Order: sequence, then C-alpha cells, then structure tokens
Amino acid sequence: MSYDKHRLRELAGFYKSQLLNDTLPFWFPRSLDTEHGGYLLMRDREGRLIDDDKAVWIHGRFAWLLATLYDQVEAREEWLEGAKSGIDFLRKYCFDTDGRMFFHMARNGSPIRKRRYFFSETFAVLALAAYAKAAGDAEMAEEARRLFGKCIQYATTPGMLPPKFTDTRPTKGIGVPMILINTAQQLRETIGDPRGDIWIDRWIEEIARDFVKDDLRCVMEQVSPEGQVLDHIDTRTFTPGHAIEGAWFILHEAAYRGGDKDLLRLGCNMLDYMWERGWDNEYGGIYYFRDVYHRPVQEYWQDMKFWWPHNEAIIATLLAYTLTGDEKYARWHDQVHTYAYDHFHDKQHGEWFGYLRRDGTLAQTAKGNLFKGPFHLPRQELYCWQLLKKHV
Amino acid sequence: MSYDKHRLRELAGFYKSQLLNDTLPFWFPRSLDTEHGGYLLMRDREGRLIDDDKAVWIHGRFAWLLATLYDQVEAREEWLEGAKSGIDFLRKYCFDTDGRMFFHMARNGSPIRKRRYFFSETFAVLALAAYAKAAGDAEMAEEARRLFGKCIQYATTPGMLPPKFTDTRPTKGIGVPMILINTAQQLRETIGDPRGDIWIDRWIEEIARDFVKDDLRCVMEQVSPEGQVLDHIDTRTFTPGHAIEGAWFILHEAAYRGGDKDLLRLGCNMLDYMWERGWDNEYGGIYYFRDVYHRPVQEYWQDMKFWWPHNEAIIATLLAYTLTGDEKYARWHDQVHTYAYDHFHDKQHGEWFGYLRRDGTLAQTAKGNLFKGPFHLPRQELYCWQLLKKHV
Repeated sequence: MSYDKHRLRELAGFYKSQLLNDTLPFWFPRSLDTEHGGYLLMRDREGRLIDDDKAVWIHGRFAWLLATLYDQVEAREEWLEGAKSGIDFLRKYCFDTDGRMFFHMARNGSPIRKRRYFFSETFAVLALAAYAKAAGDAEMAEEARRLFGKCIQYATTPGMLPPKFTDTRPTKGIGVPMILINTAQQLRETIGDPRGDIWIDRWIEEIARDFVKDDLRCVMEQVSPEGQVLDHIDTRTFTPGHAIEGAWFILHEAAYRGGDKDLLRLGCNMLDYMWERGWDNEYGGIYYFRDVYHRPVQEYWQDMKFWWPHNEAIIATLLAYTLTGDEKYARWHDQVHTYAYDHFHDKQHGEWFGYLRRDGTLAQTAKGNLFKGPFHLPRQELYCWQLLKKHV
Repeated sequence: MSYDKHRLRELAGFYKSQLLNDTLPFWFPRSLDTEHGGYLLMRDREGRLIDDDKAVWIHGRFAWLLATLYDQVEAREEWLEGAKSGIDFLRKYCFDTDGRMFFHMARNGSPIRKRRYFFSETFAVLALAAYAKAAGDAEMAEEARRLFGKCIQYATTPGMLPPKFTDTRPTKGIGVPMILINTAQQLRETIGDPRGDIWIDRWIEEIARDFVKDDLRCVMEQVSPEGQVLDHIDTRTFTPGHAIEGAWFILHEAAYRGGDKDLLRLGCNMLDYMWERGWDNEYGGIYYFRDVYHRPVQEYWQDMKFWWPHNEAIIATLLAYTLTGDEKYARWHDQVHTYAYDHFHDKQHGEWFGYLRRDGTLAQTAKGNLFKGPFHLPRQELYCWQLLKKHV
C-alpha cells in the first residue's frame, strides 16, 4: 500500500487532534503541583492521583514537551509557565551535592533514590534546551550546554559512575549512544551546540559498528566493549522497541543531512531487522524482549506489549516511508498505528494504557507511574503531525 | 472436605515419587560441573544448557537440598558428593575480600555481580549446616554458625550494607526476618545453635507487630521502621506468595513448640489473609503482586502466576490442615495442588515451568535461570512427604 495526499492529510489531522484534544488534556493543567512546583503525574485510568512522588526522568520529559509545544505549536503562556515549573523543580531539588541527579523524589523535593545511570541528566538537557529556545533564555541555554558536557564526560570516562557489575565480563549498552544522539540533536535544533555533529557522528558510528549485526539481522541491546555478542541469557536479550527508537533517531539524522544515503540505509536496516524479529504475527503488537538465538528470555514478561515501543515504531515507520517512499513502511505504519490505537488508547478517559498481555488484554490500568508519563505518546503525536505537515 | 488416611497416604506417595522420579532427575546428576565444581543449572525445557553462569543463591539452595536428601531420605554417596561440590564452589569463589558474598558468577568462579542484600549468605548457611549434619563435619558446622552470626550482624547493624534509597522515607522488608527465621530453624534442626530460639522469637514478634495488619486483613511486604503502611505505589504493593512462605515458617515453629496456640493463630491468619487477597477466583492460581488498597500495581506483570508461590502455598495449606484439622485448609491444599500440577508441571520433560500468564498459559519455558533452580519445588515435595509420613 502507499499513502496518497488525502490519507497523509487525514493522518496529520488525527495526530494533531489526539495530541491536543486527548493526550495533553489528560495531564494538563491538572498535574501542575501548585504547592511544591513540578508535576503530579502518577495517575490511574480516570486521572486520580495514585502516588504524589515525582520521577526525575519524567519531569525533564514533560517540561521538554510543554516548552516544545509553546515553541512549535502555539505560544500559550500556560505551557511555558508549566515547563518552567518542572525546570525549577529539577534545578532546585534534583541535583545531589556531587553534581549528579537523583531518580525518584518525594513531593516536597526530598530525594528518595539515585541510580547509577545519567538519564535523569539527558532528559534535563532536553528540558533546559527546549525552554531556553521557547523563552529566549540565554542563561538556561548555557546551563543546558554545561549539563550536556557532563553527560559526555559520564559516557566517556570509565569509572566515573558506580558500576553495577565487576570487570569479569565487561559490557556496554546501546542506550547510552542512542539517547545521547537524540540529546545532541535536540540541543542542536533548539539552541545550537558546536559539539553536536561531531558527537552524533561518533555515536552513530559506534551503533553501526558494535550493535547492528547484519549477519544475524539483529540490533543488540548489549555487547562486549569490542562489539561482540556475548552468549549469556542477559546479553543475548534484545529490545525491539528500543532499537526501533534508535532507528528513527538515525533516520531523523539522515533527513537533517538532506537524505544521507548511508544513514538512511542504517536506519532502515535497524527498523527492518527489529520489525522482523519484534512484530508478533499471531496477536499483533511488538514484543518487549527477544533472544537473539530464540532461546528462553530470562524476563518472564518478555512477550508483553508495552505502549512506548509502539510510539517509537509509529514514528520510525512513518519517517522511513516519507524518506524512502517504500510501500512496505506505509503498510507497517498502518499495522502498528491500528494495533496501538485499538489496544492502548483509552477511548473513555483519554491517553493510553501502558501494559498489555501478549494477547492484547489489559494487564494494568495506570496512566502514570515512576516509569510512564507524558512523553512517548505525545512526542509521537507531535513528531508525526509536524512531519506530515511538510508532506501535505 | 477433609482428608482421610487413605488420601494422606496417597499424597505422601505422590510427593515422594514426584521428588525422586521427576524433579530431582531433571537436575541430577547432569548439572554437576565436573570441570570447575558447582552446578550448571540454567536449562531450557528439555534440560539443555542455556547459560553456563552460576547463581550463588541457587548454589547454596541446591547444596542444601542434596545434603538434606542424604540426611533425611537415603545415604546415597553421590548426593553427599554433589552437595560438597556446590559448597566447595561457594567457599572457594563466592566470598568477596570484604567477607560479603557475590550474587552471580561466571562458570570458572569469576564474580560478575554483588548485590546489596545478604541472601547469598543465608542460603550458604543452609547448605553448610545441612552438609555438616549429613557428613558429621564439625568444622563445617562451625563455619555455618560463623556465617549465621554475620547475617545477624548485617540484619541488625544499620549502615553495614550499601543502601539502595536515601533516608527520606525509610522502609524495612518482611524478607529479612522471614528468611532469617527459616535459616535459624534449619541451623537449630541440623547442627543446633543456642542463638536460634531467641532470634526466632524476636523475628516472629517483629513480623506480628509490624507487618501483619489484622484490621486490613493483609501482610505487608514493606513498612516504615515503626511498622506503618506507607501510601506509595511501591510500599502499597505486597506479595501473597512471600507472606504465605512466611506463614508456614511460623506454622513450622508452632509445630516445633508442640502446637503453640499464639503462633498457630498468627501463621493461620497470615495464610488466610493472603489466600483471600492472593487467590485468583477467575483463573485459579496465586497472583504475584497486589495493592493493599486495590489500586494499580506498578509492576506490569503483577497478575502473572509464578511457580514458587504455589510451592509455598502447597506446604502452608497442608501444614495448617495437619495442625488444625480445619477442612478449609484441606480444600485450599487441594485447590492449589491441582492448579499447580495441572499448569506448572511439565509432563513431558519433568520439573515445572516457572512463569504463566494470568490465564494459565505458558509465558516462558526455561526450567532454570539466574532466579529459578532446584529449590522451591523439591523442598515442597520433600517437606510435604516428610510431614505426611508422620500422619499416616
């Protein structure tokens, strides 16, 4: 199948309307914490608060979303103020004395947990940069760049972060280069950063060289520092949705560079491999984990369908289609779009459920928790809408 | 319903036969690592090795099982030698230079991961004590007592183990007193330990006072240090199967003390509350996680059915029935026994599967991994067989 102008226009309208009339109103303005600042995002199906704790990742992500809406959609003062509230909370409470960020906070800003990773930092960079752009705030832009510099340091200085494993069997994950590519892209496309292109090149090269296995038609989640597949339960496990997210970051880069052929091939290969291995031909939807050699995956819930891989696949397939015109990608986009809006979307109360069993039945009804909040879904709806606007 | 002598004899024979002709042969002798010592236990449905890594918990547990079989069932030299192989591996490789134990090892004994908990130590105590009893090894008995002393220290000295959370919202888990009760019971009933009774009293008192909520008819998994229910997603979550395991440790103590009425009531209450909240009336089986106020549980796989809660419930219901004669417990035992042997038992290749979806379909086929090995199932079959022998 292919999409004609009419269908593309229809899709653009659908994503715009879902974003502004369904997804966003679930969260905004009711999630603003007018007492302590920041957001109250852990909500049940109907939108009632089930926990007043605050997730640091999701504070960065929602502040990014609100600032980006202000910048790209409409200059609504409440969006900018909403973004500022999250950013103030992050700056005031979420940095430890060693300069690293926490992961989980109490409502009043007391820290509950710090983790060994620096993704709190990468999402804070997104928020700061988007806000700096939206508000024209040069100081905030400087702060975003400083924090991005720290992320580069964490990623490239061995031993800087506390290790989870001994040195017996060193591994590295695709998450770090992937998320850093997106962080650098966002920084570059909001406030500009001279380091962006250089580092994006390096991280894409690392993914292509060490994680994408053309002979196996697979994108690994973890490999040895030299890029070898390690034949153990945990290291054989890969995450189709995560690699598909990586694929569209690389396709986005291909588009940014005027259709760079090598990047286009790399991004499409990653998407193709993960679609082949990740799509459930029996029940539909994208599996959470798979084993590269089809052996049992340690994570017992490996065949569940989570919301966010579907958001990433909706973006990746649409982007691949607009870049290549290959009808296969329109077909896949249609397939994942239909599955996702049929199964995850809550027609009654808005937004998406997060967690389905393999057969598509609902395993858990919360809309927000420590790991799920207003990010993957509204980002998908915004990204697809903006992308389609250019094509109709 | 109630069980007559004939049915009890039949059950005793069933558990004995399952243990010796189905469960044990899946693992033994093929899992002995004749090259590096210890066990190769990560196996797929058919018994093929899917990973040669070694789990420290499961090494202690399997060594305990083999030594206990030698002591309680039959003095087969291969069982004692098998136990020794695991114990040698634990003693030679699994202690870090600070005296604490690792969690995850490579086949050759190189450490891969150490965790913040001391359950590697408690399961090593079980193994050392059971082996000391079986082999009449006084030196090993001394080592078991020394290691148990360290466990008491870890449990009672704040700050001795690296914390996972900040001090903002202190919590404590039922796992520590529960597992230590069982460790002390095993130590007492194999090699004897003067500290046993005193500490068992304290830990049972702590569970009764801080974790068992009669007004809510619930056993909490985590509470504040003073025993309060904390109204947050993670702390509202409880684990029916875990509390049912704790219930039978306490019922075992009631039996040991000649039918102590207070302990009997406590153990039965814990079992009753968790059965009411944990049994799935629609599909059968025991849910993994629930929320004390019936709100959404953060863990998306919360309604899955794992093998081990069913092992613990089979023991707890049978023990409650033999101690009280209450027909309810015979009915429950029948219910969980039937569900479990119908759904988890692999009639073709022996042993049990570990992970079912809520509706009882199979989510993952491995028999052994970093968390599942020869422990809960063979312990259940051995315990029930031995218990029934006294009643027929």
